[in-house]
Amino acid sequence: MESMTVQLDQGSGGRATHELVQDLFIQSFRNEYLLEMNDSALVNVGNGQIAMTTDSYVVDPVIFPGGNIGSLAVHGTVNDLAMRGARPLYMTAGFILEEGLSLETLGEIVSSMAAAAREANVFIVAGDTKVVPRGKADKIFINTSGVGVVPPGVRVGGQYAEPGDAVLINGTIGDHGMAVLCKREGLAFENEIRSDSASLNGLVEKMLEVCPQIHVLRDPTRGGVATTLNEIAEQSHVGIRLEEEALPVREDVAGACEILGLDPLYVANEGKVLVFVPARCMKSVLRVMRDHPLGRNACKIGETVSNDAGRVFLRTRIGGHRLLDMLRGEQLPRIC
Amino acid sequence: MESMTVQLDQGSGGRATHELVQDLFIQSFRNEYLLEMNDSALVNVGNGQIAMTTDSYVVDPVIFPGGNIGSLAVHGTVNDLAMRGARPLYMTAGFILEEGLSLETLGEIVSSMAAAAREANVFIVAGDTKVVPRGKADKIFINTSGVGVVPPGVRVGGQYAEPGDAVLINGTIGDHGMAVLCKREGLAFENEIRSDSASLNGLVEKMLEVCPQIHVLRDPTRGGVATTLNEIAEQSHVGIRLEEEALPVREDVAGACEILGLDPLYVANEGKVLVFVPARCMKSVLRVMRDHPLGRNACKIGETVSNDAGRVFLRTRIGGHRLLDMLRGEQLPRIC
Repeated sequence: MESMTVQLDQGSGGRATHELVQDLFIQSFRNEYLLEMNDSALVNVGNGQIAMTTDSYVVDPVIFPGGNIGSLAVHGTVNDLAMRGARPLYMTAGFILEEGLSLETLGEIVSSMAAAAREANVFIVAGDTKVVPRGKADKIFINTSGVGVVPPGVRVGGQYAEPGDAVLINGTIGDHGMAVLCKREGLAFENEIRSDSASLNGLVEKMLEVCPQIHVLRDPTRGGVATTLNEIAEQSHVGIRLEEEALPVREDVAGACEILGLDPLYVANEGKVLVFVPARCMKSVLRVMRDHPLGRNACKIGETVSNDAGRVFLRTRIGGHRLLDMLRGEQLPRIC
Repeated sequence: MESMTVQLDQGSGGRATHELVQDLFIQSFRNEYLLEMNDSALVNVGNGQIAMTTDSYVVDPVIFPGGNIGSLAVHGTVNDLAMRGARPLYMTAGFILEEGLSLETLGEIVSSMAAAAREANVFIVAGDTKVVPRGKADKIFINTSGVGVVPPGVRVGGQYAEPGDAVLINGTIGDHGMAVLCKREGLAFENEIRSDSASLNGLVEKMLEVCPQIHVLRDPTRGGVATTLNEIAEQSHVGIRLEEEALPVREDVAGACEILGLDPLYVANEGKVLVFVPARCMKSVLRVMRDHPLGRNACKIGETVSNDAGRVFLRTRIGGHRLLDMLRGEQLPRIC
């Protein structure tokens, strides 16, 4: 019987989510745009092409160190557009509010959204508000959808990785997931772990200026770096080799993960981007990343290979190789 | 204390919703697009203009006579685009699922969405799925956002009504709200009341073909015909005179409303459109409406006048005049 109902891990962003999405949504809505399985769809409108994306946010708690559900909802959708190389332009915001939500909390959330939108240079042009009775939702859920335009000559997507690409990241991994989890569980460490939630469109624009041939951009949110790299390996039919030693993890995040039995490679990020570039571009891209406030700790974490297509391997510190699968089961519910 | 939290009636679509939207969302997100207060925003992308809209659906029960939350989510967003005269092209779908939702129910909902999208000739190009623990949502909430293009020469919006316009509707009022309410409350009448939920883009296209000068199109959803006409009266600074005798109401809907103490003028519709046209166009528009399966009962229900700007009056059957205000308070929660 249990298998005939929706399970928590089907929302984790890992293998179970993929199966639900593939078996039900993709099958039912079947069209060329959806089949691409990227952060945003590229669609034709008039003579041009726009990128289009949507995400719902159900994070618990709604306010956490480094952000809240409002700023997160803007960052997430801006980033999904930026991951196609698109310049985000307009967003919509749909609110589902639980009766009894404090108006002060709602005000704080909405004001963070407005600030995040200004900072990312996008307009929130349409919205919707629903209120459900107490106990029928959990405080506030937000959906944001967005559209953007892809500059001429840019062709970025999870299917375009090539053997020989360098795999870069703009900083430390696991910060968002651990910030939310520690806040939710009331875990206090010496230094408060803060979410990395941020809009990456400014950084991406700089990177595309020096290397319009970037193959893949993807933000490792639910399911973390390991799951996201698996998606790309599958879409592009390449193997990926990661260097454990190269992975940037904050000491406090690593410590918290160890205590909680979590692997930072599977913990969500909200201000990180995985970048696949032809090796010849690597140095120039890393330079502009490190020059940007959101890329100071940018580094190479691995590369793509032509064998082991669809798989991700981690070369461990002691020189062994470990297969990194997608997240299985629900590691961290309601992380975004 | 109560006034410092979100109240149910702030989601009803009536006066309280308008105040929350104006005081909080419009103030915070302030921009020219949002200030227009139409069903869709018109935004510039590249050389062209697109219409953009969003809506979340929280209807209870999720399956009702004449539709379900999935078909409703497609119809609603298609209609919001059509109400700007736009041709709907692409949609996104965001799902918030409660742990334990039956996969059979989910499958039925998703398959209705797919059918509704095919019928309306729109593609669902991007999606998102979140799962929250049991008791943190109510079965399923769906957000749909959409984009469309406005044909050259069409300029439709709530601000364009002019004195002397004829006010038309494509059929009976209150069907959706009463269908949902009767199902929810387990009320059985001789004939089951069915929702009018439908995509109106096909009908709108035909109307614009014979009269590209249509001033206003708006679907009277939450808050019903009375609230929607008040919005238009305010936006266009005109007075509106309705003829009670002309209002098409199904007998069973009228009966159910009477028993429950509801006024059909404030009950939600999901397949109806209010049309403001220059008087000279009225006949040709009514003709194509009546030729369309969704407009067989189309009729004139009133007209606009230059005095009493911002107000809506009903000329009653016995010849009196009654001021029709926006919906106050929560008449029917979770109707869409």
